[in-house]
Amino acid sequence: MSDPVLVYSRFPKSLMVRIGEKFDLIDAGGKPPSTVFTKEQLANVRALITAGGQKLGGDVMDMLPKLGAIVCYGTGYDGIDLQAAKDRNILVGNSPAANASAVADLAMTLMLAVTRRIIPGDQYVRSGGWASAMPSPQMAPLMGMPGARIGVYGMGAIGRKIASRAAAFEMNVGYFNRTKYDDLPYTYYPTLDALVEWCDILMVAVRAGADTQHIINAGMLKKLGSNGTIVNISRGSTIDQKALIAALRDKTIAGAGLDVYEVEPHKPDALSEFPNVIVTPHIGGHTLEAHQGMQNCVIANLTAFFASKGMANPVM
Amino acid sequence: MSDPVLVYSRFPKSLMVRIGEKFDLIDAGGKPPSTVFTKEQLANVRALITAGGQKLGGDVMDMLPKLGAIVCYGTGYDGIDLQAAKDRNILVGNSPAANASAVADLAMTLMLAVTRRIIPGDQYVRSGGWASAMPSPQMAPLMGMPGARIGVYGMGAIGRKIASRAAAFEMNVGYFNRTKYDDLPYTYYPTLDALVEWCDILMVAVRAGADTQHIINAGMLKKLGSNGTIVNISRGSTIDQKALIAALRDKTIAGAGLDVYEVEPHKPDALSEFPNVIVTPHIGGHTLEAHQGMQNCVIANLTAFFASKGMANPVM
Repeated sequence: MSDPVLVYSRFPKSLMVRIGEKFDLIDAGGKPPSTVFTKEQLANVRALITAGGQKLGGDVMDMLPKLGAIVCYGTGYDGIDLQAAKDRNILVGNSPAANASAVADLAMTLMLAVTRRIIPGDQYVRSGGWASAMPSPQMAPLMGMPGARIGVYGMGAIGRKIASRAAAFEMNVGYFNRTKYDDLPYTYYPTLDALVEWCDILMVAVRAGADTQHIINAGMLKKLGSNGTIVNISRGSTIDQKALIAALRDKTIAGAGLDVYEVEPHKPDALSEFPNVIVTPHIGGHTLEAHQGMQNCVIANLTAFFASKGMANPVM
Repeated sequence: MSDPVLVYSRFPKSLMVRIGEKFDLIDAGGKPPSTVFTKEQLANVRALITAGGQKLGGDVMDMLPKLGAIVCYGTGYDGIDLQAAKDRNILVGNSPAANASAVADLAMTLMLAVTRRIIPGDQYVRSGGWASAMPSPQMAPLMGMPGARIGVYGMGAIGRKIASRAAAFEMNVGYFNRTKYDDLPYTYYPTLDALVEWCDILMVAVRAGADTQHIINAGMLKKLGSNGTIVNISRGSTIDQKALIAALRDKTIAGAGLDVYEVEPHKPDALSEFPNVIVTPHIGGHTLEAHQGMQNCVIANLTAFFASKGMANPVM
């Protein structure tokens, strides 16, 4: 129990309580560890806990000469330089699927809340607009779910849960994924372009990486079209955010539900000014059960590592 | 085409366009018809269109001596004095199930948006609270959907659609209804009290009437409990709104998603001040397809009536 585990990213303290009962945590709180701890302290660190989306390259690894394990809290590990870790014999683990239901649920929440105009509707009541019969252009009826075409981009654990939920809403479900799964009752589209051309709602549920950087660009948003809504619960890097702002401004698309951003935390900007957009603070995996599941995975990964058994949930 | 049809309630003009192409509408816009039209004009009215929740008693019927048909736009007809209509040989029709999917979808939207704190989350991003790492008590994680207990009160067309959607969210589904349905894969509770005692989320989807007036009272809210959330897409009359405000103020329950109110349109009050409540302006059936379906029913009812064939969709 004496081995210190570095908490690299900024996490609410409450999320580290259970892990802290089993391991000796030293918390950098999202700051460069060298500004918070002495060289001697860092020299003892054999394992760290990070948020998978946060950049963690060879330079950081080199500040921790004994580092042997990078444990991601959550499913993603796109911020980790996997090659640099491999070169240094550092294992990388994550919490696969522990938050899949919670993230899929948030994807559905955003889709529904955007298309049913929940926030303008709530404001219409709270402001007295409804009581005084004020005209409200945001409250014009939109397409409902039954029969609407939902395109799921990325058919991993989260994508599958989005698809099964969407089917219960009587939606027409299509997907694009590198692999076509013959066990799934949904229509496969051979390219992302074809999926986006077809769908009314685009659900971005793909694993982020260099190959998906800005894959949703101006051309793709044009294909989504003026009745189209985009929901992103994956990573902000998948969408060219400037192109998204332009598409919303020009009404190239109808609306957006976003939980993730190119830079997080996201600062108020043009994106957060639109009434037909919902912006949430990266809360996809933010339920009691999902956190418990993710903490279990972190504990399992650290326990296995300190017992010299590798990672319980290795990403490579 | 010469028979005038009275539009009794206040409807957005856009909803009456298709009906107006087939019938000669005279629109009272929600005002007492006698203040808008002459006695002679009202004497010719054989049919009227109303919102089922709006009070329509024998006194109004008596102002329309030739009235033979009351056609409700939507599923509900709780505002109509059915006995008074019967005594006057006036037929009453509605739009059964035309908006069931849309209303069930809104019920799910409210449940998800309240429990995932979508509105506080959106404000946290828009206000810059997230960017500046402001503490936000509203953003503490709550129970997610998988495994949560949803109690559906009323297993009509809407209740069934709520239940099937909830099952896709991996929820534990129970219901109370006057009739137990052996074809449904959900747990039946023999009383509303038992259902409320059991569930985390209470979905009020019962048909409103004298027997359900304030059926959700202070005692029932206490049974729902401090982790419980209530969603009402039925009618405001089912909930004792004062008791609900007290229960929210005292944290007797965790939150509420409301689309309907004791008095509509609802004026801003204590109810619309809570951050853990979402108030929408009675938009359950408010999608393009649901409106089209309801208009089809209104047209079918009026067409049948003027052809002396009764009501296409009679409520009695």
